[in-house]
Amino acid sequence: MEFHEILGYLAAFFTTASFLPQVYKTWKTKSTEGLSLTMYLVFFTGIVCWLIYGIYLNSMPIILANTITGISALALIVMKLKYK
Amino acid sequence: MEFHEILGYLAAFFTTASFLPQVYKTWKTKSTEGLSLTMYLVFFTGIVCWLIYGIYLNSMPIILANTITGISALALIVMKLKYK
Repeated sequence: MEFHEILGYLAAFFTTASFLPQVYKTWKTKSTEGLSLTMYLVFFTGIVCWLIYGIYLNSMPIILANTITGISALALIVMKLKYK
Repeated sequence: MEFHEILGYLAAFFTTASFLPQVYKTWKTKSTEGLSLTMYLVFFTGIVCWLIYGIYLNSMPIILANTITGISALALIVMKLKYK
């Protein structure tokens, strides 16, 4: 594996890892008061764009990171709508 | 500009835009109680990796998005340390 690929996977790991505790905390507490629905909708739209961009670039780290983050963001949006 | 480039810039715009209100709110209220320092340090590390990965791929959207998000995340880390 080349250096820039390792870097890409590290990037994917770190940014995804920093996002997951929010999902876990929200799922555990069912409290979504601190979450802004608008911001998460904008964020999710961006993630979907990154995902398609990653497929175009044929970049596995981008595809992987944005698939996991996209599913997580969608889960937060669903919880926000469900537990309000 | 090709389709995938437009998509990259849209992605950069949306994910950056969804992050900026947090920076503005924290700067305005000086309240950093809800922010996890560990998570922002992990996130910032990931952003730096994405930035270098973007330079390797020569992808302007990745470079642009992660420069702005990196500076914003660093600003939040500084505020977290300053206003605790």
